Formats: sequence, structure tokens, C-alpha cells
Amino acid sequence: MPVPVEALRELQRVGRLLWEAGLVSSHGGNLSLRLPEGGVVITCHGAMLGRLDEDTVVALGQEEGREPSSDTDVHRAIYEAAGAGAVVHAHPRHAIALSLLADNDLEPLDLEGRHYLGKRVPVVDGREHVAEALRDFPIALVRGHGSYARGRDLWEALLYTSVLEESAHVLYLVRTGR
Amino acid sequence: MPVPVEALRELQRVGRLLWEAGLVSSHGGNLSLRLPEGGVVITCHGAMLGRLDEDTVVALGQEEGREPSSDTDVHRAIYEAAGAGAVVHAHPRHAIALSLLADNDLEPLDLEGRHYLGKRVPVVDGREHVAEALRDFPIALVRGHGSYARGRDLWEALLYTSVLEESAHVLYLVRTGR
Amino acid sequence: MPVPVEALRELQRVGRLLWEAGLVSSHGGNLSLRLPEGGVVITCHGAMLGRLDEDTVVALGQEEGREPSSDTDVHRAIYEAAGAGAVVHAHPRHAIALSLLADNDLEPLDLEGRHYLGKRVPVVDGREHVAEALRDFPIALVRGHGSYARGRDLWEALLYTSVLEESAHVLYLVRTGR
Amino acid sequence: MPVPVEALRELQRVGRLLWEAGLVSSHGGNLSLRLPEGGVVITCHGAMLGRLDEDTVVALGQEEGREPSSDTDVHRAIYEAAGAGAVVHAHPRHAIALSLLADNDLEPLDLEGRHYLGKRVPVVDGREHVAEALRDFPIALVRGHGSYARGRDLWEALLYTSVLEESAHVLYLVRTGR
Repeated sequence: MPVPVEALRELQRVGRLLWEAGLVSSHGGNLSLRLPEGGVVITCHGAMLGRLDEDTVVALGQEEGREPSSDTDVHRAIYEAAGAGAVVHAHPRHAIALSLLADNDLEPLDLEGRHYLGKRVPVVDGREHVAEALRDFPIALVRGHGSYARGRDLWEALLYTSVLEESAHVLYLVRTGR
Repeated sequence: MPVPVEALRELQRVGRLLWEAGLVSSHGGNLSLRLPEGGVVITCHGAMLGRLDEDTVVALGQEEGREPSSDTDVHRAIYEAAGAGAVVHAHPRHAIALSLLADNDLEPLDLEGRHYLGKRVPVVDGREHVAEALRDFPIALVRGHGSYARGRDLWEALLYTSVLEESAHVLYLVRTGR
Repeated sequence: MPVPVEALRELQRVGRLLWEAGLVSSHGGNLSLRLPEGGVVITCHGAMLGRLDEDTVVALGQEEGREPSSDTDVHRAIYEAAGAGAVVHAHPRHAIALSLLADNDLEPLDLEGRHYLGKRVPVVDGREHVAEALRDFPIALVRGHGSYARGRDLWEALLYTSVLEESAHVLYLVRTGR
Repeated sequence: MPVPVEALRELQRVGRLLWEAGLVSSHGGNLSLRLPEGGVVITCHGAMLGRLDEDTVVALGQEEGREPSSDTDVHRAIYEAAGAGAVVHAHPRHAIALSLLADNDLEPLDLEGRHYLGKRVPVVDGREHVAEALRDFPIALVRGHGSYARGRDLWEALLYTSVLEESAHVLYLVRTGR
């Protein structure tokens, strides 16, 4: 069964913006969303977020030969723990670097970051701890790996991802500019 | 009442360029302009500057359920204080970092910055001081937050925003490269 | 004889993504792939990867006045040594800088880099050593020059190139952020 | 008299690539080329290189109310001194920063930079010295301002500009990464 066209369009649009912003490498990151009619659609293993099409997204349980993202279990756990409508996994470079440079959580300095992310973005060691962190936070970092954000929809999860890297970039510049 | 198509097109074009240049996060920043026939059009709360459409811009006083940017009062104050034709708020990352690194105003080193911005770009603490700063300057920074520029039109306000980040990037590189 | 349209399209798409990601300068880098029907297609000397067309790619042995990339011998040697389906040469800036800063090979810190690149990316001195390095590794750096990646197809070679620069960027940020 | 459509197209294409690569701010930089039928076409004062159209380029001597770039004299001097077919002025940020950090000329470390730019890119103090520098070099930097490149055509001048910033970026990363 093909993925509903509305869902495909949103995945394509959000994926393209993540690529344009440099938030994923060519084949990196993954996206999923819950369908209004039930079920979850996720990007395929190895899909290019900047070039998604009907062959590189799949409805879970209706794979018909397509291979869902290897992060599917993480997405499932997030939906169960946090009741989101969509999940975005990306590789924000300054945020990843900061997660490797400090033991503590990431603390946004800029107003936009504080407004959307609050006083801290949790950093966890390993993907298996993401879902738990997302109970209380909209976005979390896996140390040395990347971000997982939940949202009512893909756009909200994109927002958290994009704001996180903006905050992390400012944080990094302040750190090295002293 | 819908926003005039000419105004919508300009908002879309300038918004898209801000996104392409990395001057806003996915849902960050906001734009407004004065209509020749009177009144002000502004981007909606949470609008994506890189993907504006008729549903994400609004004429003030004719909201019809749409929610104007939470920065609307700042835009209003700028129009009253400085008599501009348009206002651009963005998040230039190097400029934000420099506003957090130094107490003083930002002083462009490059010729382009000096030509358009003069010898200094004021840094104020809090959005409530932006309008006053823009009486005498085309662009100002709110410390740890971002830039507000005024112009005869959106293009001029874009120019100041784009030149500011170029100058700030060069300033930052010189600072850390010594 | 013209290059098959399918091959041209792939070269154009991968070239465009390399340009969008800043992985090549306007006329830098080069691409080649093996045709299913036999033979190798390569970008021309001085071709712009972000704007490839039928005049700037050529089938080796059927040049008809067009000049293949000056890296053609490197591509040939890679095909002979490593049996790949495609080769991507790019200029990932952080990876190049790291190759000049350290004597040793590049060691990814991030999970994505470790997954795709393993524990190290070989750095060789001079293009003549690339093919040998690519027997055992999917991508190698020529010190002070750039990367050469092999893949089953252009997409896989793009993947290694894109992941390498992501890893190198994170590595560099951690190095200078300490 | 309108600018020939072929010339306009090339100006648009090269201008767009400069914008995409971050080599100019929204209204920064300027381009000119010699027409095969004689005469010089140049971008207008305040033109946006990423959005050039028939209203923002002008044939010198046939201005009809349009205002040529304020750099027109620099372009003229380059054509007289160096006999080029086209000139590109841009604001490569790492190159500008390096011109402010060091007294000496810029010396590329990377192979691509050495191949196209040779062992040094001259840095001059003031635009009035650019034309002289371009007698012997394809591209020169004005300290704290930006680059001027000459080429047989716009594409070649773009090449030198793009390679310069790639080289300067690598140089800067090596400088601060030690």
C-alpha cells in the first residue's frame, strides 16, 4: 500500500529543508510521522532526506520489500513514551561537537533557544535512552551521534532541530571566541 | 481581506533569501512592510520565512483568525520611531555570538560593513530598546537574540541584515584567528 | 557517441548535491561511473559539478574532441584496484585541513562516521597512492588535496564523501573547542 | 538598448552561483563582461547578484537612467591593464579575514589552490591597486574588502573566486587548528 500523498509531501518538504540547512549528510538522518488514519510512516534505510520519493518512505507493517530506517525502534519507543505526532533525527554538527566536549547537558544562551528549548537540552549516552529523555523534553542529543526531536507534526520537530543547531552554533562560537 | 499579491511576493522572496543565507532557523525571524495604500503586513507567529504563503502573512487589523508575529509590537514601535517602509528580524549567528562576547557595540572591520553600517552597530539589552536605536541606525542587535533592520523596503532591510552577518563573520574570524 | 541519458542524470544529480553541500568549488572535483553496457563515463576537464550537461561529460575512448578530467588516470587505477561502480573526487574543507594538521589518518569520533567509515580514513601523500588505499577502504584523503571515494554507484560514493566531511567537521570543532 | 540576452544569462548564472556559495552578501559584489560585438556590460549599483534581471545590468555608455556599479572604474582599469574578458568582484569571508590578519600575501596550501592560483594571491591596500596586481595574477584581494578576479569569461573569473575562498578556508582552518 502506497504512503498517502499528503504524508509523502510533508516528508519531502521537511527533508529538503534539513538538507538545505546542512543538518544531515546526504544519506543521514531519518523522519517519521503518525498518519491520521493510524499507523506510522518512516523513511527507508539509506534514504536521502533531500531527495525523498515514494520508493524511499514506507508504512510500518506494510513494508512490501522496502527496508525501514535502522532507527525504527527508536522512533517506536518515542511514540510510546511521548505520544508525539512526528519524529526527526538529524546530525547538527555544532550540537554533536558540544556533546563530545562537555559532560553536562547543552544550555542555550540565545533567546530563541531558551524560548523553544528551555534551559537545557539533555545529552544521553546511546539511542536507547532517547525515548525516556523525550518524555520531558522536545529534543535530545545522543552524545557523538545527533538529535532526536518529537513534535505534533514534522514541522514542529523540524523547528526544534533547527533551533537546536542555531543555539549550539552560537554556544560554540562564544566558547571558542573568548 | 487577503494580503496584496505584490506584498506577498516580496515577503516570500526576501524570506527565501534569508533562509538560503542561513540568517534564520526554520521558524525563526519575522518580516513586515508598509503597504502603499496604508496599513502594515507582517508574517504570522511561527511562520517559516523560507516557505511563506498567503496563510502565513497577515494585515494588521484584519487578522481574521491569523496570529501576527509575537514581535508585532517591536515592529510597530520601529515604524513609529523611525518611519521605515519595512522591518526584517533575523538571527545572524556570528553577530549574536559577538553580542554575547563583548560589552561594546559591534564595529565592522570590512569596507562593505563600514560603507553600509558605519563605524558601529548598536547592541541593546532587550527588544524594548530596538526602536530607539533604529532612530539613528539602520540596524541594531539585541544581545543574545538577533538583529532588527529597517529599510525603505524589504530589500533594503535585507541588505543591512546580510551585510551585518558578513561583517560579523569577518570580525569573528579575525578575533579567533589572531 | 553521446553519454546514456540515465548516466548523465545521475552525474547531474550527484554533482548538484556536492555543490549544494559545499563539497566542491565551482569547477572543482570530478565524477565517473561504469556503464552497465561497459565502459566508463567521466566528467570533463574543468566541468562544473553543479551544472553538468551533455557537453561536460564524456565516455572514455569516445572523446570526440572533449577532454576528460585530468584525474582520469586516478579513476582508472581505482576501477582496476578496487572494482568499484563509481568514483567521486571532492574537496571537503575540514577533512583537507585535518590532513594538513596531523600526520596520522583521520579517525571519526561521531557514530555516523564510525558506522560508514570505520575507525580510520587513510591519508596518503599524492594521488598515485589513492587506488591502493581504496582496495581496503571506501574513501581516502590525499593530503592537502581532497577525497576520493568509490561505491557500487555514484550515490554510495557520495554517501562516503558527505559522511567524511560531516565527521571531519565534528572532529575539527572538537579539536578547536577544547 | 537592452543587454544581449546571452550576456544577461551568463551574468545571472554566475551571480546565482556566487550567492549559493556564500561568496557575496545579498547586495554585495559586482560582475562585468566584454561583449563580442564590443563594449562592456556591468551589474548596476546595488544589484543583487543572486537575482539579476534586465533591469539590474547595464551596457556602459548606454545607461538610459540605470546606474552602473560604483566599482565601474575598477573594472575599466582591469580591462585596460590586463585585457580580460570578464571581471568578478566578491566578498570571500575567510580570504578577507586572512587579509586583515597578515601583512603578507595569501599563500594557498591546498593542491587546487596552488594549481589555479600559484604560490601567492596578492593583497593590496585599496581598490586603486587592483588593476596593476591583475597584470600578473588572475585574482587579487583588497585588504579588508574582497576579491577581484579576471578571466577570459565570467566562468573563469568565477573559478578563481571560488578556488580562492576554498583555499582561504583551508588556510584559516589550519591556522586556528594548530
